Amino acid sequence: MNRVSVREAQSGEPVVPPEVSTSAEPRRAVVLTVGDEILRGDIINTNAAYLSEQATSLGFDVVLHESVADDVSIISEVVQKAVGLAELVLISGGLGPTTDDLTSESVAAAFGSSLVRCERAEAQLRAFFERRGRELVAANLKQADLPAGAAMLENPIGTAPGFALPTSAGAGSLVVCMPGVPTELRRMFREQVIPQISARIGHREPASRRLYRVLGLGESAVQHRIGGALESFIGGLPRGTARVQYRAHVPEVWIALQGALDSSGHSPTSAMLAGADALMREALGRSLYGIGTATIEERVLGALRQANLTVAAAESCTGGQVGALLTAVPGASDSVLGSIVAYSNQLKRSLLDVSEATLRAHGAVSEATARAMAQGVCRRTGADIGVAVTGLAGPSDDGSGGAVGTVHFATSDGEVTTHRALQLPGSRARVIKAASYGALRMVWDSLIERGVARVEDADTKFTGRI
Amino acid sequence: MNRVSVREAQSGEPVVPPEVSTSAEPRRAVVLTVGDEILRGDIINTNAAYLSEQATSLGFDVVLHESVADDVSIISEVVQKAVGLAELVLISGGLGPTTDDLTSESVAAAFGSSLVRCERAEAQLRAFFERRGRELVAANLKQADLPAGAAMLENPIGTAPGFALPTSAGAGSLVVCMPGVPTELRRMFREQVIPQISARIGHREPASRRLYRVLGLGESAVQHRIGGALESFIGGLPRGTARVQYRAHVPEVWIALQGALDSSGHSPTSAMLAGADALMREALGRSLYGIGTATIEERVLGALRQANLTVAAAESCTGGQVGALLTAVPGASDSVLGSIVAYSNQLKRSLLDVSEATLRAHGAVSEATARAMAQGVCRRTGADIGVAVTGLAGPSDDGSGGAVGTVHFATSDGEVTTHRALQLPGSRARVIKAASYGALRMVWDSLIERGVARVEDADTKFTGRI
Repeated sequence: MNRVSVREAQSGEPVVPPEVSTSAEPRRAVVLTVGDEILRGDIINTNAAYLSEQATSLGFDVVLHESVADDVSIISEVVQKAVGLAELVLISGGLGPTTDDLTSESVAAAFGSSLVRCERAEAQLRAFFERRGRELVAANLKQADLPAGAAMLENPIGTAPGFALPTSAGAGSLVVCMPGVPTELRRMFREQVIPQISARIGHREPASRRLYRVLGLGESAVQHRIGGALESFIGGLPRGTARVQYRAHVPEVWIALQGALDSSGHSPTSAMLAGADALMREALGRSLYGIGTATIEERVLGALRQANLTVAAAESCTGGQVGALLTAVPGASDSVLGSIVAYSNQLKRSLLDVSEATLRAHGAVSEATARAMAQGVCRRTGADIGVAVTGLAGPSDDGSGGAVGTVHFATSDGEVTTHRALQLPGSRARVIKAASYGALRMVWDSLIERGVARVEDADTKFTGRI
Repeated sequence: MNRVSVREAQSGEPVVPPEVSTSAEPRRAVVLTVGDEILRGDIINTNAAYLSEQATSLGFDVVLHESVADDVSIISEVVQKAVGLAELVLISGGLGPTTDDLTSESVAAAFGSSLVRCERAEAQLRAFFERRGRELVAANLKQADLPAGAAMLENPIGTAPGFALPTSAGAGSLVVCMPGVPTELRRMFREQVIPQISARIGHREPASRRLYRVLGLGESAVQHRIGGALESFIGGLPRGTARVQYRAHVPEVWIALQGALDSSGHSPTSAMLAGADALMREALGRSLYGIGTATIEERVLGALRQANLTVAAAESCTGGQVGALLTAVPGASDSVLGSIVAYSNQLKRSLLDVSEATLRAHGAVSEATARAMAQGVCRRTGADIGVAVTGLAGPSDDGSGGAVGTVHFATSDGEVTTHRALQLPGSRARVIKAASYGALRMVWDSLIERGVARVEDADTKFTGRI
């Protein structure tokens, strides 16, 4: 167990890495999230899920989540309780510049310690504000005050530094505080917290994990198709070495097959896990768009880049979301020319050459219009692949007699045009989201048809969130 | 305080509604979520946020969230602690048919009680399976076993009934258990839990709350500008009747001014809260785009509709996100014609008439290009207002010498064109998001200029999620 005291760490000398335990006994972690906004339900606590998943994948048993108010006595009490329960205490939130940001003060109070101005934190705060041409006010400098003995964790994308405080209290715990802004928290965890944990407590290699990504089938349909065969497959492995999780990420379903050490230290080999692929492909067909960590956007763009192809979208009900998904990926400009979002029928005619006759005979939400849009966007942009989506997102219908949730898709290479229609369930937001992913799936299927895309990632080991 | 004992409730007689307290002392609530999948971070805990937000809006102070493992002794211990802390204990999860669903058993154990088969629950379970043509197995019947004295809560869309257990333990608390599936939980809460709370504990009209929405200033800049004046303002109100909260909703900052009852039952009047408006407007200027619950997308669309104006976007770095934000609002088709997403320079020329000379002399990320794009989209679509956005989202620059995060915006009515440039911080995703909202802000500002928009919602009382 790590027994680095606050005094040792405070001296500024490098802390001697503890003997990292190789015992099979799992270390415990507690996740604390701080903020009135969580208790009032103003925000959804994604940080607790992220930190739990990370700690779990590093081999910790997360034994408790607790969310508490912005209050020094409450926070310091739960911190004291947490170090009695667990070797690793992960805290997020309450490091901001405002008067209700009290985490640093509370952690110091929990150990009878005080806040000390961290010069490096102050210098980085000043540099951060200077780079952005913003004025640094006194409230900001409060963020450079850390509990005595804490190692500062840099925040390259925000103003709140974090800190790691090794303590001899409780189980000899490492207390790590991170900002509540999720992007800042995640980057800090990845780049600085994992090395801190590694150096001070040690962590276990995460078990291998294979992720199957499905688009176009619901969770119960997926389970119905693969449940029996997967159970037999896992039954054929050494007992306790693999488990399966189904997770709905609307509109996707992800299936994680995770290898775990059994009590005698066996784990399934990569070859064993790979054996599941054939089973999944057989049962799920084209709906299994990916095996591995890459998203469908990343897969589509990777395949387009490799095949030196360009894409453009003709969007109606998705309003720009198809283009937005594709261009969210860095380097999208290599392959994405753009989109024509023809929300009005007038623009479907003038910008996409959909004929008045087609619109009148079939309506805007129809196979004929989707096909004309895909052809039109190829012609207008010169893209190798044009994808079109037109549908009725609701909440009310448009008086044309079509049903809310009806969506027509088409892809075209300027010569051959392919069509698909779906009836999507749920709210306006859900229909728009599913329709946007449906359009990506159309492009993906056309890339598979052309033989320029494959379902497996280069690296199919997966250690992130599912 | 409600002192309905388990024995009284068990008799099946209607429980006499307690005298609903009119004391100003706020009632407290605790939210417990049960399940290993939460502690492992396999799922994001949206139920905790939902239950907290509901309890808050019913006038409860939520004092604690706790998420615990599927373990009888752990669950019953936290339930015992919770009834000591709060009048209302809301629990979700662990009511399913599998062996790791232990909440009912644990709640019974917490009160030294036992599980009793509920005939109504059993009948409804059998009917549920029959309707779906599914076979009812023994494991399912376990879901009809409820703690003695509990009132069953029906689950019309799932198999797990919930229950409400009035108890004389602790503060005389009402313990409510609901299924973990969010749609089932929400429907049960709305239709059955609120009436239970109302009858057994009573709930208070939520305090009035005024929400100020800011776009274009960071959290610390907002606090710097309004902090002092707001403190004086609150100081002038009866002590303890109002409090302020700052919340970063990147790229926005929200300021909530909440009226609360003080210990003698005073609360600030609407007029008092309204008095804060002048202060906020003065200090924040145009960055204060809204007072009330409506989002900037809803405000823009509402003003466009009222003024009978149309809008179209010319997007580059945002890739379609501006159009997607606008069209996410129901009824967008009244005012949004569409977008031209000219991600490539070729499409900026061919679809938006940006001249080769402009692109060569100034580059794609420039004031001249933004202006030409806004004018081009007006001409090509016939929109009353064209908004353009072109910038460098990163992560790496484009070799043109521009800095990542530089974004140029323009709005045009076909004749007069207005320009703004921003240097946006953060990751690619953050720059794209801020640029998309920046474009909405440009449209909003032009609607304010035209005198067809106002900062206040019709209804400025706010009781929902911030």
